[in-house]
Amino acid sequence: MKQNRIFNFNAGPAALPTPVLEEIQKSFLDLAGSGMSVTEISHRSKIFDDIINKAMERVKRLLNLKDNFKVLFIQGGASLQFSMAPMNFLSGDKTADYINTGTWATKAIAQAQSLKKNINIAASSEDKKFSYIPKQFNFSENPAYLHITSNNTIKGTQWNKFPDAGDIPMIADMSSDIMSRVIDTKKFGLIYAGAQKNIGPSGVCLAIIREDMLSQIPDNLPSLLDYSVYAEKKSLYNTPPCFGIYVIGLVLKWLEESIGGVEKMEEINRKKADILYNLIDSGEFYKGTAQKDSRSKMNVTFRLPNEELEQKFIAEALQNDLGGLKGHRTVGGCRASIYNAATIEAVETLASFMKEFERNNG
Amino acid sequence: MKQNRIFNFNAGPAALPTPVLEEIQKSFLDLAGSGMSVTEISHRSKIFDDIINKAMERVKRLLNLKDNFKVLFIQGGASLQFSMAPMNFLSGDKTADYINTGTWATKAIAQAQSLKKNINIAASSEDKKFSYIPKQFNFSENPAYLHITSNNTIKGTQWNKFPDAGDIPMIADMSSDIMSRVIDTKKFGLIYAGAQKNIGPSGVCLAIIREDMLSQIPDNLPSLLDYSVYAEKKSLYNTPPCFGIYVIGLVLKWLEESIGGVEKMEEINRKKADILYNLIDSGEFYKGTAQKDSRSKMNVTFRLPNEELEQKFIAEALQNDLGGLKGHRTVGGCRASIYNAATIEAVETLASFMKEFERNNG
Repeated sequence: MKQNRIFNFNAGPAALPTPVLEEIQKSFLDLAGSGMSVTEISHRSKIFDDIINKAMERVKRLLNLKDNFKVLFIQGGASLQFSMAPMNFLSGDKTADYINTGTWATKAIAQAQSLKKNINIAASSEDKKFSYIPKQFNFSENPAYLHITSNNTIKGTQWNKFPDAGDIPMIADMSSDIMSRVIDTKKFGLIYAGAQKNIGPSGVCLAIIREDMLSQIPDNLPSLLDYSVYAEKKSLYNTPPCFGIYVIGLVLKWLEESIGGVEKMEEINRKKADILYNLIDSGEFYKGTAQKDSRSKMNVTFRLPNEELEQKFIAEALQNDLGGLKGHRTVGGCRASIYNAATIEAVETLASFMKEFERNNG
Repeated sequence: MKQNRIFNFNAGPAALPTPVLEEIQKSFLDLAGSGMSVTEISHRSKIFDDIINKAMERVKRLLNLKDNFKVLFIQGGASLQFSMAPMNFLSGDKTADYINTGTWATKAIAQAQSLKKNINIAASSEDKKFSYIPKQFNFSENPAYLHITSNNTIKGTQWNKFPDAGDIPMIADMSSDIMSRVIDTKKFGLIYAGAQKNIGPSGVCLAIIREDMLSQIPDNLPSLLDYSVYAEKKSLYNTPPCFGIYVIGLVLKWLEESIGGVEKMEEINRKKADILYNLIDSGEFYKGTAQKDSRSKMNVTFRLPNEELEQKFIAEALQNDLGGLKGHRTVGGCRASIYNAATIEAVETLASFMKEFERNNG
């Protein structure tokens, strides 16, 4: 750990790679010899053009995307995508299938329903407090799309194998595990991801859209809610969130050049998750909240014997420069979010602390 | 000018106060002793709560807002506001009045019309290429609101006196002159402003809404497009653009504590504009493009005797560390954007260069 930095296990906004933060800091008053900050340059300038183009190219290379995918940067976070997806792809006479795996999927469903759209819940794990990923699905006939949430930050579950929807385009909220593992993108018509967990700061949402989806978009949507406007204008219809796109570019450069790509990242993420889950499973003191076959490699959720100990655990951890370990306010307990930027060193330090805390309080 | 910094006359994203950039840089890896970057802290944390609350309070103090106004931070820029305003405040049976003073007003009108809303153009200066602010209005009977664009960045015009719409709520796009002058906010039902000109980086839009407007909002709007959701959740319904809000807070702190408030800022802005307009009016070499009574104190637009000289002017200016002087691509010519963060020193340096350029090329 660097001086004055803590190990940050926040669920989002979350830790960013320290070398990326250092580069931002170094260039903050003079970006690439321009004599201006990244916050002061025109979005129509050559410098910013390079920034956004390179960020798009890195997304394509890192996810091994074919040329029929467009990379977009949109404001409003995943929460705006909950509305944009049905506005763009669910016409009045069609139905869309949604799988409900937790808080964010529930919100996505509610936003689609408030648009008076026809929604079929193809599966839900609500019966067991969303502690697992469903395996049985009740797909509707010829749905417009199937919507899933690839990783559930609050409940600590993750799709380890995506459902097989045949030719139905899948739409996925990958906010909390984009770029953390190799995925087969072919099945997806749209992938969206708020940046603030794995790839950047809050205020920018990455969207990856398959070209054939664009032809389905109705006319006369507000321009800022129309994916085809972003695709046509290369996300420069209006002033984009320049700082956020710049940081995404730097994080993806780090992922590509320092880590070695998504496959390497996946290996590291597996190691990190194994360290914590092995510790949790090794005794009775810590208890994982997600079913084992549905566990998330991004958000490790666990309980201690009682809430008093949980509070003590969180407070003592912070005293030891281990931050962000409180579970989501709706579920309580503890949670270690170990996105791409969480280092093995950070996870090992947490594991040591957990062992010591168990020795002292078990 | 500080080492490695240029005088930046960009139209937006635009210059930010150098002391603000320096503070961001200094704290970038460790915000307020948290051991985390501002990009890494939770939007539900105490630190961020302080940041957003203080930013809201500063907006209220600086604009002398009564308690019946709510301060909101929204993503999507002014361009999304072009759609949100009619979606929230223009029901099917009503008409809204719009005054068309240039490119951005035209876009606001087009977005409202694409929603199949009833729009009345109460006035337009399109007949003279938007080079003036209209004085005659053709208001409709009992409109839902009157929409204006307070400053027109591309044409270099500005409302020096707002139209009198009686009790009709005014909605104003103040993206390019918010906080640059004292305004009487009482008449406004909604003021919105993309941050990237006068108050912060791109990616966050300030909205100021009068409470009585909130009751008019229809049910079942997408949550991210519903002003009442922002008002109720204090702009924390979902993860906000934390970095942008943080920078706005610092810029407003600078405006309040270093400059001394909006009245003082207005004086400085008047001085800056006078320096350039006096120079332009002193001879035949430079010609202002806006009618004198409609001139903007934020965007000084002018032409040189021919386009060749304009190109030479822009290039030589940049060699002298004076950047961003090219007019908007749709109109050509030259433009000096002198928002709040442009210093008198910057404007005087530009004026000296302009005089010298005239001597050498006139």
